[in-house]
Amino acid sequence: MAAAVPGRITLLTDFGFADGYAAAMRGVIADRAPGVTVDDAGHGIEPGDIAGAAAALSRYWLEYPPGTVHIVVVDPGVGGSRRGLLVRAAGRAAVGPDNGVLTPLLESPGPVGVIEIRNAALFRHPVSATFHGRDVFAPVAAFIAQGGLDGDVGPAVFDPVRLPLPEPVSTPAGFRGVVTGSDRFGNLATNVPAQLALDAADVRVGGRSVGRVREAFSAAAPGELLALIGSGGFLEIAVRDGSAAARLAAGRGAVVEGTAGPATMKAGR
Amino acid sequence: MAAAVPGRITLLTDFGFADGYAAAMRGVIADRAPGVTVDDAGHGIEPGDIAGAAAALSRYWLEYPPGTVHIVVVDPGVGGSRRGLLVRAAGRAAVGPDNGVLTPLLESPGPVGVIEIRNAALFRHPVSATFHGRDVFAPVAAFIAQGGLDGDVGPAVFDPVRLPLPEPVSTPAGFRGVVTGSDRFGNLATNVPAQLALDAADVRVGGRSVGRVREAFSAAAPGELLALIGSGGFLEIAVRDGSAAARLAAGRGAVVEGTAGPATMKAGR
Amino acid sequence: MAAAVPGRITLLTDFGFADGYAAAMRGVIADRAPGVTVDDAGHGIEPGDIAGAAAALSRYWLEYPPGTVHIVVVDPGVGGSRRGLLVRAAGRAAVGPDNGVLTPLLESPGPVGVIEIRNAALFRHPVSATFHGRDVFAPVAAFIAQGGLDGDVGPAVFDPVRLPLPEPVSTPAGFRGVVTGSDRFGNLATNVPAQLALDAADVRVGGRSVGRVREAFSAAAPGELLALIGSGGFLEIAVRDGSAAARLAAGRGAVVEGTAGPATMKAGR
Repeated sequence: MAAAVPGRITLLTDFGFADGYAAAMRGVIADRAPGVTVDDAGHGIEPGDIAGAAAALSRYWLEYPPGTVHIVVVDPGVGGSRRGLLVRAAGRAAVGPDNGVLTPLLESPGPVGVIEIRNAALFRHPVSATFHGRDVFAPVAAFIAQGGLDGDVGPAVFDPVRLPLPEPVSTPAGFRGVVTGSDRFGNLATNVPAQLALDAADVRVGGRSVGRVREAFSAAAPGELLALIGSGGFLEIAVRDGSAAARLAAGRGAVVEGTAGPATMKAGR
Repeated sequence: MAAAVPGRITLLTDFGFADGYAAAMRGVIADRAPGVTVDDAGHGIEPGDIAGAAAALSRYWLEYPPGTVHIVVVDPGVGGSRRGLLVRAAGRAAVGPDNGVLTPLLESPGPVGVIEIRNAALFRHPVSATFHGRDVFAPVAAFIAQGGLDGDVGPAVFDPVRLPLPEPVSTPAGFRGVVTGSDRFGNLATNVPAQLALDAADVRVGGRSVGRVREAFSAAAPGELLALIGSGGFLEIAVRDGSAAARLAAGRGAVVEGTAGPATMKAGR
Repeated sequence: MAAAVPGRITLLTDFGFADGYAAAMRGVIADRAPGVTVDDAGHGIEPGDIAGAAAALSRYWLEYPPGTVHIVVVDPGVGGSRRGLLVRAAGRAAVGPDNGVLTPLLESPGPVGVIEIRNAALFRHPVSATFHGRDVFAPVAAFIAQGGLDGDVGPAVFDPVRLPLPEPVSTPAGFRGVVTGSDRFGNLATNVPAQLALDAADVRVGGRSVGRVREAFSAAAPGELLALIGSGGFLEIAVRDGSAAARLAAGRGAVVEGTAGPATMKAGR
């Protein structure tokens, strides 16, 4: 599938904003694909936080139009034996290391194509042992964003690394799920979809009750804990004008449970 | 007034750089207005810091050419009863929540138009309760940046929320004003305009003397406190190669006073 | 030398992401050079960290294609007697204060041209005493990026400020160099080029042995200290999945030494 021309590339990394690494990637793209638009998707991922990068990617990759190429570089295994991947899903593409950061595309419901990046003729040389963002992923993304073909990148891969995505379970009392991460505001994301969460008469996180799912932050008093449906369609735990992560001292992996009750909140949504 | 085509949009938020929220907004704009240029104006506003966002906006909104659409999303009231606004001033536009973040445009000296964002046909659906940046403000900005008409956005508003902007007062001894905020360098901004400040023989912050207004940082010794005129034309308190906010343990709301004296500094400016 | 039209500008500053200063610069460029693409190279340089900005610039300025104009604003001397410079090297240009931040271009092996920015007709007025990024450097970069001529900017300069770049020395035992800085990951960069480092049988930092140079992070165990060749072709000290800067409590200026041994690592690179 050829990308729209001129294309668009996004960049998500753990490189921060003081060292010039992300700019080196943008420079390579500017050199090789001068008509392509490059958007910073954020360079503030915590160093090595693969799950955090995947969670961020899941929030924006489908908002961009078909033809967009998403680069994700959180790559503690750079220079070792881990593969580099090009993934195609829903008309978008992504390139990055084969360590799970591209899980949102890999788990896409439609057909997904996965290619191992192997054609060194596409790379920036010399290829360093520490910076494949600049030497491998940026050049390959530039190639793909301009309509380059998968077959020129490398062979198909059938066993890409996926992050284990926990599934919520139904319980006699309601549901049990987990916190999948927290954002800058301290909101706790979970793996519990809205349709499961909205039935709960009470939601508990780490054993603490936060009541039933409410419509919006404003349904809670300032400083109050609440449950609501986040922008991705999943249950979130928040503190109005505050941080649930700090209040509950909870993060990724914390248990969230629901007690089934009458679905009185459903009508309002 | 129609924006220039292709247009330009800027984005200021408190979303940070690790969660993909700003990228989701950029994705919506890329999808709906692919020819429009998007500039990040910064995503480092402290969570919920409406006054800080307004201060930042005041520094750049008029530097951009007419036709630019400025999005500002610092929105603790998202999903509640607060309105969303489109503001037109000086040929530029801004969209954001009706909580005071758009005050710089609202206080613009020329004609100002204010529209409530109401036309759901423009929105991204489903509209979440927690992320109107993606679902409401980005799509409306994309519409306006491409020349969309105010009448298609919603009805006029005559009582938008304005931040209370303190006015400095003249005193028998000179002036009294307040610190309006501090920046990354620890420089303290004030509400005292240059013409008032330059007459002072002495400037005092929180009761501490910093001398008369000087020409530039270099007029002070390294580590010394000084008063000078900032890039917006107002009195600032600084420490050369240091932080006045830290040195004085002062911030927004601290009192700044001036004692009138001969206007000997004026000639040099 | 005229830049390609439409041009490209990059922006590196210590302005952070909360105050709107970088956006003010982008606004000036958008106003004066609407067809020019602007890339953020990062606004997270520590306030006043001239050496850090030069190190970042060295990582990306040559990755961009000829014609690119790199703005660097880390400018504690703004408003004083320090000059503003336009530097031309390797087909690229840079503008910024004459305080050493532009050293990477000044030390470029080919012909280098240096101009003092003096033509006030190019500036944004009134020129403030505190924000030459907006008032001087952005307008001059916009002029140059659109093909403006050096002779219209100002006269030639023959004594620009250069950062002292320490040179590594050969010793009877091998080499002695210094740490030149650390990045977000805590990797310690040094001034020791690969060809010197690869001969060492042992590398010592602050007196602590880290063994010989290895191929990649993956050659060390998680949490282990190692020496390797960084993406710029110089020796680096790292901790796999950790921070060497934190582990060694070492930073810029720390001594790094090598003991000569058989060049067994060379073949693999």
